Amino acid sequence: MSKEINPVRNRISNGVKMKPLKIREPEGKLGVLLPGMGAVATTFITGVLAIRQGIGKPIGSITQMQTIRLGKRTEKRTPLIKDFVPLAGLKDIVFSGWDIFKDDCYESAKKAGVLDINLLEKLKPDLKKIKPMKGAFDRSYVRNLDGNYIKSGNRWQLAEQLIEDIRKFKKKNKCQRLVMLWCGSTEAFMERKSVHNSIKNFEEGLKKNSKLIAPSMLYAYAAIKEGIPYANGAPNLSADIPALVELAQKTKTPIMGKDFKTGQTLLKTIIAPGLKARMLGLSGWFSTNILGNRDGEVLDDPLSFKTKEKSKLSVLEYILQPHLYPELYGKIDHQVKINYYQPRGDNKEGWDNLDIFGWLGYPMQIKINFLCRDSILAAPIALDLVLFLDLAKRARLSGIQEWLSFYFKSPQTAEGLEPEHDLFIQLTKLKNTLRWMMGEELITHLR
Amino acid sequence: MSKEINPVRNRISNGVKMKPLKIREPEGKLGVLLPGMGAVATTFITGVLAIRQGIGKPIGSITQMQTIRLGKRTEKRTPLIKDFVPLAGLKDIVFSGWDIFKDDCYESAKKAGVLDINLLEKLKPDLKKIKPMKGAFDRSYVRNLDGNYIKSGNRWQLAEQLIEDIRKFKKKNKCQRLVMLWCGSTEAFMERKSVHNSIKNFEEGLKKNSKLIAPSMLYAYAAIKEGIPYANGAPNLSADIPALVELAQKTKTPIMGKDFKTGQTLLKTIIAPGLKARMLGLSGWFSTNILGNRDGEVLDDPLSFKTKEKSKLSVLEYILQPHLYPELYGKIDHQVKINYYQPRGDNKEGWDNLDIFGWLGYPMQIKINFLCRDSILAAPIALDLVLFLDLAKRARLSGIQEWLSFYFKSPQTAEGLEPEHDLFIQLTKLKNTLRWMMGEELITHLR
Amino acid sequence: MSKEINPVRNRISNGVKMKPLKIREPEGKLGVLLPGMGAVATTFITGVLAIRQGIGKPIGSITQMQTIRLGKRTEKRTPLIKDFVPLAGLKDIVFSGWDIFKDDCYESAKKAGVLDINLLEKLKPDLKKIKPMKGAFDRSYVRNLDGNYIKSGNRWQLAEQLIEDIRKFKKKNKCQRLVMLWCGSTEAFMERKSVHNSIKNFEEGLKKNSKLIAPSMLYAYAAIKEGIPYANGAPNLSADIPALVELAQKTKTPIMGKDFKTGQTLLKTIIAPGLKARMLGLSGWFSTNILGNRDGEVLDDPLSFKTKEKSKLSVLEYILQPHLYPELYGKIDHQVKINYYQPRGDNKEGWDNLDIFGWLGYPMQIKINFLCRDSILAAPIALDLVLFLDLAKRARLSGIQEWLSFYFKSPQTAEGLEPEHDLFIQLTKLKNTLRWMMGEELITHLR
Amino acid sequence: MSKEINPVRNRISNGVKMKPLKIREPEGKLGVLLPGMGAVATTFITGVLAIRQGIGKPIGSITQMQTIRLGKRTEKRTPLIKDFVPLAGLKDIVFSGWDIFKDDCYESAKKAGVLDINLLEKLKPDLKKIKPMKGAFDRSYVRNLDGNYIKSGNRWQLAEQLIEDIRKFKKKNKCQRLVMLWCGSTEAFMERKSVHNSIKNFEEGLKKNSKLIAPSMLYAYAAIKEGIPYANGAPNLSADIPALVELAQKTKTPIMGKDFKTGQTLLKTIIAPGLKARMLGLSGWFSTNILGNRDGEVLDDPLSFKTKEKSKLSVLEYILQPHLYPELYGKIDHQVKINYYQPRGDNKEGWDNLDIFGWLGYPMQIKINFLCRDSILAAPIALDLVLFLDLAKRARLSGIQEWLSFYFKSPQTAEGLEPEHDLFIQLTKLKNTLRWMMGEELITHLR
Repeated sequence: MSKEINPVRNRISNGVKMKPLKIREPEGKLGVLLPGMGAVATTFITGVLAIRQGIGKPIGSITQMQTIRLGKRTEKRTPLIKDFVPLAGLKDIVFSGWDIFKDDCYESAKKAGVLDINLLEKLKPDLKKIKPMKGAFDRSYVRNLDGNYIKSGNRWQLAEQLIEDIRKFKKKNKCQRLVMLWCGSTEAFMERKSVHNSIKNFEEGLKKNSKLIAPSMLYAYAAIKEGIPYANGAPNLSADIPALVELAQKTKTPIMGKDFKTGQTLLKTIIAPGLKARMLGLSGWFSTNILGNRDGEVLDDPLSFKTKEKSKLSVLEYILQPHLYPELYGKIDHQVKINYYQPRGDNKEGWDNLDIFGWLGYPMQIKINFLCRDSILAAPIALDLVLFLDLAKRARLSGIQEWLSFYFKSPQTAEGLEPEHDLFIQLTKLKNTLRWMMGEELITHLR
Repeated sequence: MSKEINPVRNRISNGVKMKPLKIREPEGKLGVLLPGMGAVATTFITGVLAIRQGIGKPIGSITQMQTIRLGKRTEKRTPLIKDFVPLAGLKDIVFSGWDIFKDDCYESAKKAGVLDINLLEKLKPDLKKIKPMKGAFDRSYVRNLDGNYIKSGNRWQLAEQLIEDIRKFKKKNKCQRLVMLWCGSTEAFMERKSVHNSIKNFEEGLKKNSKLIAPSMLYAYAAIKEGIPYANGAPNLSADIPALVELAQKTKTPIMGKDFKTGQTLLKTIIAPGLKARMLGLSGWFSTNILGNRDGEVLDDPLSFKTKEKSKLSVLEYILQPHLYPELYGKIDHQVKINYYQPRGDNKEGWDNLDIFGWLGYPMQIKINFLCRDSILAAPIALDLVLFLDLAKRARLSGIQEWLSFYFKSPQTAEGLEPEHDLFIQLTKLKNTLRWMMGEELITHLR
Repeated sequence: MSKEINPVRNRISNGVKMKPLKIREPEGKLGVLLPGMGAVATTFITGVLAIRQGIGKPIGSITQMQTIRLGKRTEKRTPLIKDFVPLAGLKDIVFSGWDIFKDDCYESAKKAGVLDINLLEKLKPDLKKIKPMKGAFDRSYVRNLDGNYIKSGNRWQLAEQLIEDIRKFKKKNKCQRLVMLWCGSTEAFMERKSVHNSIKNFEEGLKKNSKLIAPSMLYAYAAIKEGIPYANGAPNLSADIPALVELAQKTKTPIMGKDFKTGQTLLKTIIAPGLKARMLGLSGWFSTNILGNRDGEVLDDPLSFKTKEKSKLSVLEYILQPHLYPELYGKIDHQVKINYYQPRGDNKEGWDNLDIFGWLGYPMQIKINFLCRDSILAAPIALDLVLFLDLAKRARLSGIQEWLSFYFKSPQTAEGLEPEHDLFIQLTKLKNTLRWMMGEELITHLR
Repeated sequence: MSKEINPVRNRISNGVKMKPLKIREPEGKLGVLLPGMGAVATTFITGVLAIRQGIGKPIGSITQMQTIRLGKRTEKRTPLIKDFVPLAGLKDIVFSGWDIFKDDCYESAKKAGVLDINLLEKLKPDLKKIKPMKGAFDRSYVRNLDGNYIKSGNRWQLAEQLIEDIRKFKKKNKCQRLVMLWCGSTEAFMERKSVHNSIKNFEEGLKKNSKLIAPSMLYAYAAIKEGIPYANGAPNLSADIPALVELAQKTKTPIMGKDFKTGQTLLKTIIAPGLKARMLGLSGWFSTNILGNRDGEVLDDPLSFKTKEKSKLSVLEYILQPHLYPELYGKIDHQVKINYYQPRGDNKEGWDNLDIFGWLGYPMQIKINFLCRDSILAAPIALDLVLFLDLAKRARLSGIQEWLSFYFKSPQTAEGLEPEHDLFIQLTKLKNTLRWMMGEELITHLR
């Protein structure tokens, strides 16, 4: 967080009522820019339209539905979060985005097969109006997709075109503020190279059309350059490189990633802390998934899968702290598989087997079968991130927003720090950050 | 907690290093008294013996294995809990108990079929020495058991005999301190009557041999009367009546219950907070269990099952706060079944089906199959409760110890308060209580 | 089967091409009468209408989709069954029925929630036309339903009214032939009494309005009296009493029951023969179901459930032949539970746990989770039974049609014989019966 | 089968009591030769020893435990198969084999971790005596194993050494007859080449030490050359090549393969016929396995896995006959995965998801979780094959024994014929073959 904010400890140790941050009011239109207008993006957009018309509810959204306890339990103050912090209203949101296929939002949602056709029909006129802009694409990063609706030019030119797109959109729609959210496919695995290490190197790389700069980085660059909050719903690096973190600090832009925490990993970060709480040992966790949507097709490519796998595998190690508990968690056979299986469509299904052990080492097993819907779980995350990043911007928070790690499989952290994966610590952190923003006392659960 | 302790808030607001409580050192022998020496008790006892000999590890025990973070994350202070608070050592524990069958600890463990026969053989001499005292029993409370090793007399006389048993054991084994833990069967369902409402009524009831006083209450009475910490691992009322709470305050005795949180309910209190954290709705939760041990036989009686069912059903309602989230949790079809199924033996197996819903109300399902071992999960709880209750006694805490709610399906609370069921809040509470006892700063997870 | 048919063995031993039975051609309309027009009946009816219009396929129907191998394998003769035996065509079917609620077929299908509303809308005009006649009802047999569209009169009068209904329907719709299929709810458990033992006693009972005659028996009586083939899709006795078997022989009427084999029991009769084929032992089979439709509500009454449970429990014992294999199947803990669980709606879900054992007694487990749709599995059975019973009638087969045991959980048999439950033997029997009818060689799978 | 046997049809059409085959009595010792003395072989051997001593039962063995119905049902003739056909007795079996590790049978069984250590201790003296002979090995066929107890020489020399081993063993143990069973690891995938097409080419290949001849072929060659019945429990080609089939006919040797049908595929061939019987459609079947034994390690090599996968994938296509039922089975997404997962040890676990559809195309799902023990399921198959192949030899049947397809995932067939995979047809075929051998009437299940 930026330095102008007083650290919380000081404010507590004053022993007086804490001062809230100064946060600008959310006036005017908020433009939401979505690179990748497939299943997740269209489910998000359609849902917001439906909720605005009163024909759907924002289930799964913390900003819209969750309450926050303030003060002592006996005070019984538990407002909705949206009534507690100054968030943009759903009615003020305007959508746009990019894609490598030309389908408008109605067509794309229909192909995604997530939402009921009757609902899409009701919202058809509004959905038809939301058309993607041409995408910036490089097939070597997503080998199983072959888009035909793409910009031309080298990377520098592509970035300039994206910035131009953004400005036009903002002006045309009279937006006061913007937020960008990567909802595109998982890009092929890559590691950080020197081109990613400083904004200087990065901009040189753009000009030299360096192959090491992935398309998602172009979008992130364009957003951050313009001071637009940026979040990344997929596991590819995108803004998680020193160059763009540096740029975010310069432009005072809040950013966060990576990889929306839905489905199987969500459950994993719920259950693993429970096992650790009870000091139950873990000898193996085998996770497999079947899914039949475009996401599954993309991940059928080993290069894209490697990116995803890395994101999915990391959570256990951090939560379980094998360095503190070598007898319990020092030797875990942790495997994650993703299988493209057509009959499942967008309904991703997970099967997990946990081999745990208790008192004197006796083994037990837990098996979990999750009949899940990826986009249904991702859409409210997209909404929350848009609203919280916009809040962060107005509260003058910039750089990596670790308090939003709650939403991500691979939470981005400051260089050298480990991410927090425990869902319950993440939520405490998120809520205590909101309390701190508004000058309320933090919660410790001590009676 | 008793009034002599300064409330934590004052101590924090001083802005200075907090003062720890004064806690007596755990010197001398600690006697552990177990009414009910079946599967749970013998697994607990055998385990402690094995651990003392270095041929087993106390997996699942917070006191023995868990660390606690102190101070700021950067301080890297994470001692083991047993090195942080002054707990009795395992080597100082002496066991005894009561049962309605005459089997010694070796025979009983063998019949229970939980532990490997090779382990029992290694510890046979020590196990043979631990013989139960005759039980206080009334078959109308456990209709599916027919014990033949029981005391005679009316309830008042039975209570006196139990007190006599306790004193003899203490003297003979030169114990400095004692703890009692109910490990007996689930008694038939009952509601509080006037005989339970004050210690005066209760003692009159004893003398009149009132049928409304269950055997487990006799043990609880004997313990609390003697100032011995008492905990209840089963769901029957036992010490959870105003009369015995009143007595506990008078005799400055820490007490806690009810119903060890193992297996299916443990998972439920892990997963339900996760669903709520993410604002995922719940329309139904169907839980069924198959088990084939004595516990299963007892619960095959509808009266005993009703006691258990009540304990198991209550957790969701509190965790999910339907009054705050009527759209998400206002209408849940929550069912819990227990089936006596012989092939499973002591290995209780749970099958859960959760019907959840997300964005715009779209349904998803989670199915969990838990191949669990009840006694293996219960034994470390027994150990922790013995050690923590003994700590509480030495720290001069008395009455209901809500900070131990972490271990119970139906945490006992002060009259009129609702219990906390969320495993993660329970753990935070437990650890912050330990920090507070020792004068360390509380943790808020705000960076 | 009736005596006029030459036994098959004679015909084989002639060593010549066998003679087919004489079967009347299926000319004219076939009326289908359905007592109980709920989920199963409306799914059946709607499906037939959809198939006739080419907007649906008769998946699950043996008569419509299955082939039958004739002669030697090398002959490659495998016609569809419907092209092999002279069955009525779907276009010639006319529907009617009775119910205790007044809803027409469209309304009832909508409430049942089985089929997609878009399909129902397409067929709405035709479905609206199919209205139930008033039902013959006695609430003591189905305590959880409270119908308001019912005939009055004593049992004799009710039977007469049903016969009158049948005649009117036949005349009005110019039907050449009729078939009746009980699709009503499961009636309360009862055992055979003397009133069920002969048609004389039965008709006296009707006149005396004997409480021992269940409503479903009135329908069966009316059908059989009129020479109309009758089958029973529920587990209650209905036509499975000596009185009605006697009547069926007199009126040369084919009959068959009881309880459509769908869902969990279907799987059981698939898997149990497999275990036996491999001589794998079985120590327990625990089956539980959750379902939320009207069927679930009815079975929530212990009296109705007892009828169902008996039907579901019997299958294992016969298939596994514990008298031949006492070491493998002599001691099975077999349990079946049905739970009314609202979130599941019409989608019954089964969870099965099998405890099996192999070489030297080593245990293994199989767990099966069936996300099933009862009515979808029942509808093609209804269609097949209608067509095969009509075929039987035209082939002059009468009495109990054991070759149709393939479709039933509790196949009706001649007095004193045990039913065949093994799905694969049942299918062999069904197909060899068809081959025999048509004078084709039987199949033995010997190369 | 060889031509000297009268075809069954003639014998039936005679209309008289059929004549049984002439079968030599099973006199003297039967030597069992096992290439590969790992988990399966040692479980088989230990079991036979235990059964002989009366401390174990041959659960899972058709020859030892199954009955066979003879004549009409009313005759009530159902002898045990072992009392019906003249099989060798267990007391007459003598074991030996080869391996690439030097462990004797006791050590190897202990490492395999399948059987209880207490059982192994009881049989230790006998097990210690059974020591493997040095194996013929080529690591390019099993890349994940690195044996150190191997013969040297080119392929021709290796084959000669194996024949020498066999003769010595036979003489030393005074065996009257021998049977060989491949219990070794799955070899790398290969396709038939010209060297496999005739015994002439094959023997030339041996001499030229052709890399295309796998080690398992050397064993098969040695056995068949000596007229010793040979079966293959793994999926690699081994004797399933024209060269060795030709040799088997010349030496009048019965042979059969490939790949013992245990676990997941066993269940598949039970359930798939059930779905087809009911004409339920199938859109996908996803199978995954976790296992942690040597078998798992071997299959972790993609080359070995490919051999296994081919064997596992083929069963559905044949059973479901997509050419006859294109609407039901024309487009199945069938996937099989095997994962090496250490915590599972020898207890292979399968998880299957079936996507089926019924009436009007409505989808349903079946999920199966099989906690299985591979070697426990394989051992009785090994026993049955030994006894039945010995029977076949004495009955002068030679070449491929298709009536034993019941035991195999990829039943070997005569060139150009398709294998039968349906477990129930396979069992009918097996039993009718036994009836035919003994001159009993075949069963058709027509009443």
